[in-house]
Amino acid sequence: MNLRAGIVGFRGYSGAELVRILEHHPNAEPVLLEHRSDSEDRPLPRGHKGPARAPATAEAVKSEGLAVVFLATPHDVAMQLAGPILDAGARVVDLSAAFRLGNGASYLRWYKEEHTAQHLFAQAVYSIPELHRDQARNARLIANPGCYPTAASLALAPLARAGVIHRAAGVICDAKSGVSGAGRKPSLKTSFCEVTENFSAYSILDHRHVPEVLMNTGLEEAQFSFTAQLLPTHRGILETIYFRAPGISSAAALLDIYEQAYANEPFIRLYDPGKVPDLAAIQRTNFCDIGLKFDPATGRAVVVAAIDNLVKGAAGQAVQNMNLALGLPETAGL
Amino acid sequence: MNLRAGIVGFRGYSGAELVRILEHHPNAEPVLLEHRSDSEDRPLPRGHKGPARAPATAEAVKSEGLAVVFLATPHDVAMQLAGPILDAGARVVDLSAAFRLGNGASYLRWYKEEHTAQHLFAQAVYSIPELHRDQARNARLIANPGCYPTAASLALAPLARAGVIHRAAGVICDAKSGVSGAGRKPSLKTSFCEVTENFSAYSILDHRHVPEVLMNTGLEEAQFSFTAQLLPTHRGILETIYFRAPGISSAAALLDIYEQAYANEPFIRLYDPGKVPDLAAIQRTNFCDIGLKFDPATGRAVVVAAIDNLVKGAAGQAVQNMNLALGLPETAGL
Amino acid sequence: MNLRAGIVGFRGYSGAELVRILEHHPNAEPVLLEHRSDSEDRPLPRGHKGPARAPATAEAVKSEGLAVVFLATPHDVAMQLAGPILDAGARVVDLSAAFRLGNGASYLRWYKEEHTAQHLFAQAVYSIPELHRDQARNARLIANPGCYPTAASLALAPLARAGVIHRAAGVICDAKSGVSGAGRKPSLKTSFCEVTENFSAYSILDHRHVPEVLMNTGLEEAQFSFTAQLLPTHRGILETIYFRAPGISSAAALLDIYEQAYANEPFIRLYDPGKVPDLAAIQRTNFCDIGLKFDPATGRAVVVAAIDNLVKGAAGQAVQNMNLALGLPETAGL
Amino acid sequence: MNLRAGIVGFRGYSGAELVRILEHHPNAEPVLLEHRSDSEDRPLPRGHKGPARAPATAEAVKSEGLAVVFLATPHDVAMQLAGPILDAGARVVDLSAAFRLGNGASYLRWYKEEHTAQHLFAQAVYSIPELHRDQARNARLIANPGCYPTAASLALAPLARAGVIHRAAGVICDAKSGVSGAGRKPSLKTSFCEVTENFSAYSILDHRHVPEVLMNTGLEEAQFSFTAQLLPTHRGILETIYFRAPGISSAAALLDIYEQAYANEPFIRLYDPGKVPDLAAIQRTNFCDIGLKFDPATGRAVVVAAIDNLVKGAAGQAVQNMNLALGLPETAGL
Repeated sequence: MNLRAGIVGFRGYSGAELVRILEHHPNAEPVLLEHRSDSEDRPLPRGHKGPARAPATAEAVKSEGLAVVFLATPHDVAMQLAGPILDAGARVVDLSAAFRLGNGASYLRWYKEEHTAQHLFAQAVYSIPELHRDQARNARLIANPGCYPTAASLALAPLARAGVIHRAAGVICDAKSGVSGAGRKPSLKTSFCEVTENFSAYSILDHRHVPEVLMNTGLEEAQFSFTAQLLPTHRGILETIYFRAPGISSAAALLDIYEQAYANEPFIRLYDPGKVPDLAAIQRTNFCDIGLKFDPATGRAVVVAAIDNLVKGAAGQAVQNMNLALGLPETAGL
Repeated sequence: MNLRAGIVGFRGYSGAELVRILEHHPNAEPVLLEHRSDSEDRPLPRGHKGPARAPATAEAVKSEGLAVVFLATPHDVAMQLAGPILDAGARVVDLSAAFRLGNGASYLRWYKEEHTAQHLFAQAVYSIPELHRDQARNARLIANPGCYPTAASLALAPLARAGVIHRAAGVICDAKSGVSGAGRKPSLKTSFCEVTENFSAYSILDHRHVPEVLMNTGLEEAQFSFTAQLLPTHRGILETIYFRAPGISSAAALLDIYEQAYANEPFIRLYDPGKVPDLAAIQRTNFCDIGLKFDPATGRAVVVAAIDNLVKGAAGQAVQNMNLALGLPETAGL
Repeated sequence: MNLRAGIVGFRGYSGAELVRILEHHPNAEPVLLEHRSDSEDRPLPRGHKGPARAPATAEAVKSEGLAVVFLATPHDVAMQLAGPILDAGARVVDLSAAFRLGNGASYLRWYKEEHTAQHLFAQAVYSIPELHRDQARNARLIANPGCYPTAASLALAPLARAGVIHRAAGVICDAKSGVSGAGRKPSLKTSFCEVTENFSAYSILDHRHVPEVLMNTGLEEAQFSFTAQLLPTHRGILETIYFRAPGISSAAALLDIYEQAYANEPFIRLYDPGKVPDLAAIQRTNFCDIGLKFDPATGRAVVVAAIDNLVKGAAGQAVQNMNLALGLPETAGL
Repeated sequence: MNLRAGIVGFRGYSGAELVRILEHHPNAEPVLLEHRSDSEDRPLPRGHKGPARAPATAEAVKSEGLAVVFLATPHDVAMQLAGPILDAGARVVDLSAAFRLGNGASYLRWYKEEHTAQHLFAQAVYSIPELHRDQARNARLIANPGCYPTAASLALAPLARAGVIHRAAGVICDAKSGVSGAGRKPSLKTSFCEVTENFSAYSILDHRHVPEVLMNTGLEEAQFSFTAQLLPTHRGILETIYFRAPGISSAAALLDIYEQAYANEPFIRLYDPGKVPDLAAIQRTNFCDIGLKFDPATGRAVVVAAIDNLVKGAAGQAVQNMNLALGLPETAGL
């Protein structure tokens, strides 16, 4: 019998992606949890009802027999709902940033507001499965990572662990994301006429996804420069990452570090030296694709990492984490 | 010395286009009139101030010496502001639908709300200059036409006047518009992720622009079927119009009717038989381009008309109307 | 054991979609058949080999044990390859137009060139499964329909059979397609800078997909007016279809005809009266979605039908036809 | 009387932009010079002839009385045509890369082919007017800069001259360009379906525009890392530039260097500290907009520079250079 997985925020872009993935999951089925902040549905063809629905309450968690609830909501809603849902016996995979930074002080610094559920940090586990798999197994509250940090961390963590990055020279991550990363709530910044044929940078040097990358790589803030930029596309993140690796002799040697780190990873794909992924390679998949160019004469390295912000950057990784937490095959449904 | 032309709603797409046109107009200059409903400005480079600003009040009309005020606002704002501005001595070119339909009853039927400035209908002049030039000269209150009806009326009026359309067989106007036609106010329908890679039909058979086409062509409602559709483009309208012309012998004969009607029109461009315009032909211009295909064996005609919804469909035509009202050269600034 | 299905033209957009579908098909697996006219591959991640490959020859059909070969090629290549492949013992599903029109004369008229494999017409079966299911079962050579005619025929055939269309008043089909419908071969017309922010009509009244609609609906050429138009989207077809149904009393009555015709069809979805599909509803699916608006006072009907041109309009329908021909479950892999 | 300016390559995107600018230039008028390599025209409305035409020959230069000829052609065509045109008495503004690098050896290294008109290097002047104005005055053969180097050089040259860049730590230029930068010749890489909803990096660390930036800034190759990336937009370049400025105390201090360098420049616009331009700010203009973010604690600087690749990056700058060469007002027509 399938596990039942609740989704709060199922009308948002990440939430809708969760519904889509769970509808095809061999071991789970979605239950749409209505919450007051939700916006309008997409129209359905005649006679199509969609998944089961219930209110986003602790009572419903019990009466619907939910094994897990995904929170694809604003941060404050996640802080408010996580505790009651956990108390009602379900696991929680939180796609908001509420529990990512490990403590209230860090949350306050980067998100500029008080954290209202700090007692839950003790049981919260931050998990990019390729980097934190063991912690995610059997976890009750998983902080699903941000989209930008997922790509940057997967590209940088193996190299940082191997000690090949010249940290003092700094690491640059020039990131570009499709518009769905900004959510479904209408705003001028995400209006078609403001985005089409346009491209813009924002949150230069102070994006709130930066601390996640520092956590995952051990880099210090002064060593990591990050720019977020808005692409006129629906989905996809591509990050162009620059650093120096003075002790490395060739592109193949750099690539070898990735190959060892990710030898058995089903969702990491590497490219031959000099080849790099584009967005088309990863859209609608849970893959993180990584390619690189290296200049042996100067030690300059450029790594390109690409993910779908709604899949590996949100809903896909959330299901991967759910699979780990519930002891299911990690790739199930993906 | 330049005439001063106020613009209410200068932050909207039509309003911004008015500013752009008037900044390059040889006889006029824009004054931005602040109104409470306005949204945020686009950021300006350092040291660039943009045009003069004043409040959208009758007092400012006098103190700023405005010869004309453009209302690029919602219908209700236009109803509220038009009277006081006229009383203060300026002419009004209204880009909303407030004064297009000639009376309150028609407005109520199509716009589903009471008209609150019905006393002004007596002096309101509806003007597509190519069809209503004489009425527009020296007019004090001009109802600037809707974007869809401008293209449809310019394509159909000469043929309707010439009596070549088989009215009983019906006229179909399948219209497609860029997203800026929906205005700058954020909404889910105009969000990038909802529009890109998408195409959708709306207001099938009951779009409120229909009565304008009927007024301008003499067609009856049962004879004119109209569908509006949303293109994933910033700007541009293309209408594909189908009808039967049983008394016409060739494409050239049909084209000849247009050539006679529009012989001296600076903003109408025709195409050789079988050739039709695309959006690229007219974007950022005040042209209405018309081309056609005709099947002599069956009398079936297909006319394609294209305009830029923000120029000939809004701001450009509004300036053309202003030029007529103020006795300036009709093409000035265009 | 899986059936092996060859694909000639696997680098084109329809061909790549065939590969994608067959890689997930429970009863079949793809074999890429190299043919001289093929263009360049998309780069693959390191270590990913993709499906098996073989030359597009009769010998390979035998040595690879192919049960079926898909021809996603230009018309002339299909005419050249179909015979040898059939002789080698495989079934053929031809996505080109080579065998759609039933005879060489009709092909010559619409495609302006001599047909070089007319002896194969005798065994060719044209199949939109919802309309020609019985013929497709066990067929050896299937002519897979054109993308535009699939949507138009599914929208019109049930009404034409029910006799509710006022044929003398004419049927208008205003069709819009994404760019992938034009194929992957580079051309100015499909270059990004020519298409983005643009929209254009082509082949007005003489598109070569017209005869397929006439075949499938019984309409005469003078009764059916068709315009093809290029949308700035990757994929998707939306057709807005206008006609009169004087004997129909309501939208519900019109919809009822569809419900009866398509009661058990897994790939047809209908909408409540007044609701119509958009492209997003059907992209990357094998569905044909149909919705309508009806004006009882005048008998005017507007039907909107939408399909993905690469799936229900090409590769998906081709696999649906393969399933029928081979006796597999019709929805397998879709 | 207007000067006559020939354009070879007028059907390309840069060439068409030249035609558009020169048609509105107060002192010049375009003459379209036909050359065998040219592709098809855009269709014109009935009765519209467009500018004068002549063959791209030395004879026509004389008989048409051309004061200047723009070469918006492939490099090899420019090498072949420049000499005869100069000999015929016209000045040449070359938009290709033929004469940018100053000598044949450098051309061979970066463009991988022999230079066939090396005798012309002696009179060739490379000119971004804001950096090389004096050399451009009265020049006979102007090498118009590449699009990427124009933005990067305008952003970096004042800082490099002021000595504030920490060169050993390296300068990163992460550049993004619209598709028109790749020219109008059809190719798979610029096909709509390959570009829409996609984003890709190319020529990482070895783009042939790099040497121009080195020339203009004095940076060494090992100090300057450049990545070119393809945006799904028609036009516009945005470059995000990273470096360290350890001796600078604030964003205002860094901005002050630009303000002094560009105090009287009509085509450079700066932004308040922390504000940066987007593509919409500069599309269809000859402006180069520059904004920056600076972190005083670590000396990290991020500069964003944006230009329209077809205007300041090609045709606009070419006309600016023509104006300088011919002694016209530098901003004429722009």
